[in-house]
Amino acid sequence: MLIDIALDAMGSDKAPEPEIRGAILACRQLEVRVHLVGPERTLRPLLAKQMHRAGLRHLPIKIVQASECIGMDEKAVQAVRSKRDSSMRVGLKMVREGAVAGFMTAGNTGAAMATAKMVLGALPGVDRPALVAILPTSTGKPCVLLDVGANVDCKPKNLEQFAVMGEMYARSVLKIGRPRVGLLSIGEEESKGNDLTREAFPLLKQLPINFLGNVEGRDIYNGNADVIVCDGFIGNVALKTSEGLARLVRDSLRESLTSTVTAQVGALLSRKAFNDFKKRLDHSEYGGAPLLGVRGVCIVGHGSSNDVAIMNGIRVAAEFAQAGVNARIEQSMVVADTPVSNY
Amino acid sequence: MLIDIALDAMGSDKAPEPEIRGAILACRQLEVRVHLVGPERTLRPLLAKQMHRAGLRHLPIKIVQASECIGMDEKAVQAVRSKRDSSMRVGLKMVREGAVAGFMTAGNTGAAMATAKMVLGALPGVDRPALVAILPTSTGKPCVLLDVGANVDCKPKNLEQFAVMGEMYARSVLKIGRPRVGLLSIGEEESKGNDLTREAFPLLKQLPINFLGNVEGRDIYNGNADVIVCDGFIGNVALKTSEGLARLVRDSLRESLTSTVTAQVGALLSRKAFNDFKKRLDHSEYGGAPLLGVRGVCIVGHGSSNDVAIMNGIRVAAEFAQAGVNARIEQSMVVADTPVSNY
Repeated sequence: MLIDIALDAMGSDKAPEPEIRGAILACRQLEVRVHLVGPERTLRPLLAKQMHRAGLRHLPIKIVQASECIGMDEKAVQAVRSKRDSSMRVGLKMVREGAVAGFMTAGNTGAAMATAKMVLGALPGVDRPALVAILPTSTGKPCVLLDVGANVDCKPKNLEQFAVMGEMYARSVLKIGRPRVGLLSIGEEESKGNDLTREAFPLLKQLPINFLGNVEGRDIYNGNADVIVCDGFIGNVALKTSEGLARLVRDSLRESLTSTVTAQVGALLSRKAFNDFKKRLDHSEYGGAPLLGVRGVCIVGHGSSNDVAIMNGIRVAAEFAQAGVNARIEQSMVVADTPVSNY
Repeated sequence: MLIDIALDAMGSDKAPEPEIRGAILACRQLEVRVHLVGPERTLRPLLAKQMHRAGLRHLPIKIVQASECIGMDEKAVQAVRSKRDSSMRVGLKMVREGAVAGFMTAGNTGAAMATAKMVLGALPGVDRPALVAILPTSTGKPCVLLDVGANVDCKPKNLEQFAVMGEMYARSVLKIGRPRVGLLSIGEEESKGNDLTREAFPLLKQLPINFLGNVEGRDIYNGNADVIVCDGFIGNVALKTSEGLARLVRDSLRESLTSTVTAQVGALLSRKAFNDFKKRLDHSEYGGAPLLGVRGVCIVGHGSSNDVAIMNGIRVAAEFAQAGVNARIEQSMVVADTPVSNY
């Protein structure tokens, strides 16, 4: 049986091309039916063209009409309020109504989060939904970092909920047995950190999870933890700093490798190795960031997503939906809320 | 005339070897006299051996006796209190007494900061001294990030002072004309950020500096700003996240490039290009982190510093001292403290 996923056709920087090609890829490789949400008049001919080019006649792709789209630079709250027929809103409504199992967009992150919170609402027991980054590590296993969606000035209780949600996601979707959960701080000892982490530490310690204690920035990439929890301001800075450094490394490497003919020949011989290397670090392989804590499945991809990234986002949405993570989070939240008995 | 610099001979992970070799390098390449601070009985024969090996007879290197050293894993406050004759304390006392123009250590960062604050004290008008990271960018110019020394739970006023100090450092030592100063946040608009950045924004805006407004994590490496100001918790996470990612990239690249014989040959041909690439991103080229806001010059290097990093640290200490940054910071602080008149 196919899983129904709604895809915001107008999300990415180069929309709708990557979305249409990503939907085609997804339908060929995964057990999904994709609902392309956007202006039908634009999408219909482009989809036909891409299908024709790929020599395909039938694929489980439907087009769902939405007349508006939210731009990357639009202010989230304003866009959500004023555009009642945006592709994001229409797609997320389909999730709420049960017409699809999940929604994926590569659009404006702030708008996606705001729309999801408004249309789907939060799971019971969750004060603030969190955006999750799935990052590569040196062990080959991913690291789950949350919140990266900018829940700023978090309370200790928020971090506690992020820990529960992140752990459940790592366990159910990424199939990591007994995920190791760390609290992002600036030193390993319990006393190290700021007011927030020092207050959150005992809350995380008493959760029924495999709590490592404090971890540091470098632990995001070295595989020492499966799940790392932090305030959204910190997570956002860590993520964007990483993006900036990755770009600097890429540009410097390219420049060095094209500086002399010998280096160029060397680079040519190592081409496959470079592609492996890139693939290992490429976020498009990870397929976007799940939004945890809303009543439904919502995946937010990077604005620069290509067709492969879109396909992987659809895959993540399908896996998220199938794993029944939300029901489990709800259950864990109730458990976490129950006061610990002394008997 | 030679500039006198005290060097903690027992700081780095592999001390005192990198320190001794770094001091020799520095004395050969720079106009400095190095005072190696540590246990004389250990240092004397090692220095003689290294001098002999390099075929040298006379260099302006002195050994200054200090009987104790502070380990990397020691708790800063405790170590500073209990070890009255540590190499850090002896070296910093020389700065206070005017026997040397500056001090450099590759030891325990927390202990170095605590000792410097205790022995030297803060400059008038400075509430919290800040540790500065000098980072590479895609334009080739460095970016000054502060605080990375973990002044956690900063007040808006602290960020204001960091901005003044960082700007002055960029101008005086790095010779950047009219440095562009950014406030590290999660979006460019003034309204984006957390409580701290939103309150700090107007304070930075009214300073007589070239204030860019908010910048994001990726701007640390793309050359969009010369100076970036943040709370020490954030700066520390950003720095350690970068370290972790850089290591992951290095390891992945190495693994990919040794996976097949063709890739190995390619890597061999590109060896010079790789060395250029590494050098460009290598923190040892930047020579350690200046501590700004104390009465004196103190540079803290990475624990993994090699001889080149030590030499560069000594160079930075000498440049810092020569530029007269502290007198200028003191002056700016007084200006910044003067209330803005309405007339």
